[in-house]
Amino acid sequence: MSAPRVGVIGGGQLARMMQPAAINLGIELRVLSATATDSAAQVIPDTIIGSHHDWDAIEAFAQGCDVVTFDHEHVPTEFLEKLIAQGIAVRPGPHALQYAQDKISMREALTQAGIPCPQWKVISKESDLVEFGDTVGWPFVIKTARGGYDGKGVWVVDDLAEAKTVVAEIQAADIRVLAEQLVPFVRELAAQVARSPQGQCVAYPIVQSTQTNGICHEVISPCPDLSDERATQAQEIALRIAAELDVTGMLAVELFDTGSEILVNELAMRPHNSGHWSMDGAITSQFENHLRAVLDWPLGSPAATSPVTVMVNLLGKDLDDLHSAFRHVMARDPGIKVHLYGKAVKPGRKIGHVNVSGENRDDLTARAWHAADYLTGVIDE
Amino acid sequence: MSAPRVGVIGGGQLARMMQPAAINLGIELRVLSATATDSAAQVIPDTIIGSHHDWDAIEAFAQGCDVVTFDHEHVPTEFLEKLIAQGIAVRPGPHALQYAQDKISMREALTQAGIPCPQWKVISKESDLVEFGDTVGWPFVIKTARGGYDGKGVWVVDDLAEAKTVVAEIQAADIRVLAEQLVPFVRELAAQVARSPQGQCVAYPIVQSTQTNGICHEVISPCPDLSDERATQAQEIALRIAAELDVTGMLAVELFDTGSEILVNELAMRPHNSGHWSMDGAITSQFENHLRAVLDWPLGSPAATSPVTVMVNLLGKDLDDLHSAFRHVMARDPGIKVHLYGKAVKPGRKIGHVNVSGENRDDLTARAWHAADYLTGVIDE
Repeated sequence: MSAPRVGVIGGGQLARMMQPAAINLGIELRVLSATATDSAAQVIPDTIIGSHHDWDAIEAFAQGCDVVTFDHEHVPTEFLEKLIAQGIAVRPGPHALQYAQDKISMREALTQAGIPCPQWKVISKESDLVEFGDTVGWPFVIKTARGGYDGKGVWVVDDLAEAKTVVAEIQAADIRVLAEQLVPFVRELAAQVARSPQGQCVAYPIVQSTQTNGICHEVISPCPDLSDERATQAQEIALRIAAELDVTGMLAVELFDTGSEILVNELAMRPHNSGHWSMDGAITSQFENHLRAVLDWPLGSPAATSPVTVMVNLLGKDLDDLHSAFRHVMARDPGIKVHLYGKAVKPGRKIGHVNVSGENRDDLTARAWHAADYLTGVIDE
Repeated sequence: MSAPRVGVIGGGQLARMMQPAAINLGIELRVLSATATDSAAQVIPDTIIGSHHDWDAIEAFAQGCDVVTFDHEHVPTEFLEKLIAQGIAVRPGPHALQYAQDKISMREALTQAGIPCPQWKVISKESDLVEFGDTVGWPFVIKTARGGYDGKGVWVVDDLAEAKTVVAEIQAADIRVLAEQLVPFVRELAAQVARSPQGQCVAYPIVQSTQTNGICHEVISPCPDLSDERATQAQEIALRIAAELDVTGMLAVELFDTGSEILVNELAMRPHNSGHWSMDGAITSQFENHLRAVLDWPLGSPAATSPVTVMVNLLGKDLDDLHSAFRHVMARDPGIKVHLYGKAVKPGRKIGHVNVSGENRDDLTARAWHAADYLTGVIDE
């Protein structure tokens, strides 16, 4: 019996959450983790300690893997090109991953493909800022082309003076600067699809995503009060992006819903926070479909198993012993599904999430928030 | 953050299937496994290699565990008593586990508690056989008091000569002999409950279990065409046994349905094959509730998430490369959930199972059997 081996670069919670799916499917995971105590390293026996910036570590790690995939998008594409040159499958490939690594490349590719985006402009000099401010008005958004996540690397600038300060700071780090229209959205959505090398795709239900300080905090699946037409439009945007950019594995597309149109905000080419609901609310979780997709196996059904699932992230606050709060939450609500990442609690850090599925959205939302607030110490009753 | 550590004695598939639940809950599993390639050892980093017959191995393994539990019931109870004397929690405790280890003790305890059982008799000498044959008629069933599982250690004897041969063989191994009435059952059921040390219990839906050569092959949850009254009666039998014997963790009670009454066949004090459907068909799987129960945490809801779930075991046959058949099965049915145990294929060996959930029982049953038959090489289209 030949169990396939999937190598995952990065030892965070996304790699950790691939392990239950891998166990069920009889897939061997190998993880390249910065430390032996990282979230995924705790639960995956075949853990190699090393940095994703270290070619020697990546090369040694990849030997014997049927395919290499990712917990995050920060691996230099030149390393991935070298793996491919050695005959090792890398999914998503560097030709796709570059668009998740560089927001300017992403905007260029999406605009060329006719995908609806906020207005954007590459900023090199002061006159670019003035010109873009004249076009879209102030305030607008400045982003680092590379290295940002969870609200990091994003600024809303009110005027030229502030914009110049931010741009100077980014350019000092030798990173390119992207300016984007501040979209007057009424809410944020996310579309997730899985795509395999042979081109099979499945689309998950469109979800509503709510952020706190730029970090995903609540996801409701399916998105409330979204017309079938609009939901299909959002799914089609994600399917088109996956095909245009030749993404393999999971693709998450974060979207702005302005009330009248849907615009693409960000891309992630891996399992994503907006899909954690699928662990308890879909026939096939995003983690299982990511593994199936990168192995070029037929994909599993993304259909929901309940009318509604609500996910709320556990963002670290005052309470640092989650397990002491666990019993209360479990006793109060036997239907709550708690997922912990084995991470030390730090303020604002994602340390876990809760899912709850059922029929009444308001009831489920209240239950999920109560559990999350209790587990993080926001409330104590 | 203090993650609890649960020690599991035995490295089989039941320990393996605890790992996804442990990962989600932030529980650290440690497994005592006979080899480094056992089913659970493949997926649990903290694997200690050793025998459950070796006190020194068990003692070293148990240090630092918050509680010790089991993949199987074969650990000598004297070792467990010694662990408890050292202050280590063992769940289920040896005072309960003895009834799962010794079928004569089990029949004595259940009969004393007024739980309905087949007629039974301890066999010491030839006249016991004659007397029991006169009482229940021939053929009847002979079992070893200890060491049997999956149909092993069970004989149906047609006459006194055959019975004497079987008894002599068992007694030669210094094992006591139990005779039981051959129950004219119309089908077999299973009742599963989880019970925590503080006495909280939850009861799973009653399932129908179908055996092939004494090995569980198909489980349908909930049991078809079972009245609410009869289902409640079966649940109450399991709840009473759990309380009477002070079981902690999961208890499975295999039952005969004679059409007019329900009789207890066997007990298992651990997650059990009859509960594998719960991995994809219940809010809380039997593996999660076993971990919650042995940690004395509040139990999760055992409610089904779909009207029907059908489980079919993968029993090894001709095909030894499951993964080559995997793609066909996945492509044909995106809703099938395949679970593999990482075990080499041997004829008749449990190497995995499939679950499928939905509304139409006949359709689900056909889908589950097609997948199982294809994966094991019984069919090739």
